[in-house]
Amino acid sequence: MTDQKAVSVLGLGDMGAALAEALLAAGHRVTVWNRTAAKADPLVAKGAARADTAADAVLASRLVIVCLLDYDSVSQVLAPHTDVLAGRTLVNLTNGTPGQAREMATWAADHGADYLDGGIMAVPPMIATPAAFVLYSGPSGTFDAARPVLDAFGESNYLGDDPGSAALQDLALLSGMYGMISGALHAFALVRSAGASAREFAPLLNRWLQTMSGWPVGAAEQIDSGDYGKDVVSNLGMQEAAYVNHFTAADEAGISAELLAPLHALMQRRVAGGHAHEDLTGVIELLKK
Amino acid sequence: MTDQKAVSVLGLGDMGAALAEALLAAGHRVTVWNRTAAKADPLVAKGAARADTAADAVLASRLVIVCLLDYDSVSQVLAPHTDVLAGRTLVNLTNGTPGQAREMATWAADHGADYLDGGIMAVPPMIATPAAFVLYSGPSGTFDAARPVLDAFGESNYLGDDPGSAALQDLALLSGMYGMISGALHAFALVRSAGASAREFAPLLNRWLQTMSGWPVGAAEQIDSGDYGKDVVSNLGMQEAAYVNHFTAADEAGISAELLAPLHALMQRRVAGGHAHEDLTGVIELLKK
Ligand SMILES: NC(=O)c1ccc[n+]([C@@H]2O[C@H](COP(=O)([O-])OP(=O)(O)OC[C@H]3O[C@@H](n4cnc5c(N)ncnc54)[C@H](OP(=O)(O)O)[C@@H]3O)[C@@H](O)[C@H]2O)c1
Ligand SMILES: NC(=O)c1ccc[n+]([C@@H]2O[C@H](COP(=O)([O-])OP(=O)(O)OC[C@H]3O[C@@H](n4cnc5c(N)ncnc54)[C@H](OP(=O)(O)O)[C@@H]3O)[C@@H](O)[C@H]2O)c1
Repeated sequence: MTDQKAVSVLGLGDMGAALAEALLAAGHRVTVWNRTAAKADPLVAKGAARADTAADAVLASRLVIVCLLDYDSVSQVLAPHTDVLAGRTLVNLTNGTPGQAREMATWAADHGADYLDGGIMAVPPMIATPAAFVLYSGPSGTFDAARPVLDAFGESNYLGDDPGSAALQDLALLSGMYGMISGALHAFALVRSAGASAREFAPLLNRWLQTMSGWPVGAAEQIDSGDYGKDVVSNLGMQEAAYVNHFTAADEAGISAELLAPLHALMQRRVAGGHAHEDLTGVIELLKK
Repeated sequence: MTDQKAVSVLGLGDMGAALAEALLAAGHRVTVWNRTAAKADPLVAKGAARADTAADAVLASRLVIVCLLDYDSVSQVLAPHTDVLAGRTLVNLTNGTPGQAREMATWAADHGADYLDGGIMAVPPMIATPAAFVLYSGPSGTFDAARPVLDAFGESNYLGDDPGSAALQDLALLSGMYGMISGALHAFALVRSAGASAREFAPLLNRWLQTMSGWPVGAAEQIDSGDYGKDVVSNLGMQEAAYVNHFTAADEAGISAELLAPLHALMQRRVAGGHAHEDLTGVIELLKK
């Protein structure tokens, strides 16, 4: 028998385990399954029911959360059990592309399951804290029905009925983060080359990145308008001239500046194209294929 | 005649003009010079004195702020006037490398001038607001004497007597920012490929980057310890598997993922080196030459 507060979680890696724990803490009846069964032990100790097979886990609850490594593993786990999917809601929080999400939504529908795709904007320790938010897309009725349970993970952000939207915006946000991490790694390599500790430098970097996290807001205006020449306060020509200093300093420091190279290539192409007096943001035009 | 509240500013580009304006607002007697003289007009209208030559500007004040495009332009402007430098304090806020800063400190000393090097962590509209901070390095006595004036620009952050320190940390912070901008540009290109407006997406990206701006604090612990395997919650193997989705999604979207490529190359090398179970932060080891 299933009931409204029953939830199953397939995949108990770092993230899946955090999700299952949040559901337990929110008072749900949680059934868990993981390929490597031992990862369920701490959750069973906290009150979760162990399913011996993925099919048993799906059968235990109307709402099934899936959080595996990638879409290939989701297919491997679910494909042998299409007979148990009818009437279930699958919420797939596995990282993937918009195309994969749309394909899986169709596949789920073919087997009588409702499908939501999601992107978790948090690391596992942030789950169930105010810092976490999760993007969802798929049919709004499916989202509305699942939402009271999903809210246990963090703020639920519904992006509309195209199942690919959550994956798209998830990847977009992650690329912002990975860019920031790339730059921060270069920054740490540079200060450490001078004998400074990363720990001492980190608060300054944190402050600066926090200050600059507002950059997208102004840039978005320019991008939507396509006008990169209005009210410029940091012209591209000046920025390109200063950017070269990153490479000289990296050479002096004996570190590789490879993480900073692609933006410079775009800056140079944009300057060569006659846009030195405009804002840096205009390099985005060069990303269109 | 010079006096304590007299300050000269050489260079009235977007940044130099903002600095001169902050000094005027703080009640200082400000003399300004710029190669293209017309850029002084708005400042003269606000009470600044115009110097016809760079030498006149240096002679007008004991404290001379220099904010030009790059160190080459600083040399071009000051080299013909070494005779007027003795007894002055030069505060060079032009972007440069640690090596350039040290070289210019020596050059200034050779001509009897005190020298501070600085890095402005702000865009011009942020000058004289609480969001701005400026890094300084050079002799502490020189900094202490100049500080009451320099505080007009924003929080003054003194980094010690090595004149190269400000440039080093400036470049390190800027590389963090440029990484973030690179990632954000990719993010915008991706969401716009799906017909979404950048403006609608920007608040989410802003929020996410703000959340992740704390990343350096945890990473710094790992970097200083050299141990990337402790308390891992987002293992590199999982991250590398998900990172591939950026390239697939960019292909589907018809945009170039070049800004995301170098981090992936490092991730792959690090996974190949047997570190898939560790944290991503360990890729920093591959930046050492
Ligand atoms: N951790 C984060 O910071 C974070 C943040 C946001 C999103 N995510 C996403 O959440 C998902 C899970 O991440 P995670 O951190 O939990 O990863 P993880 O700790 O590496 O766990 C991977 C999970 O996938 C399972 N798995 C892998 N291949 C499988 C297969 N062929 N068949 C069955 N199960 C398989 C693993 O089972 P075994 O235990 O048997 O190996 C494990 O449960 C990923 O898509 C990731 O991108 C993670
Ligand atoms: N704007 C920012 O967001 C920002 C932030 C932090 C740091 N900075 C740094 O501040 C410095 C100035 O930036 P900015 O934004 O003011 O740049 P800008 O608006 O492009 O102004 C450049 C300035 O340098 C002068 N200049 C260039 N070549 C010269 C030469 N050969 N001889 C004499 N003067 C020369 C220009 O004089 P003309 O007017 O005659 O061309 C102008 O005053 C740079 O080092 C920059 O990296 C800027």
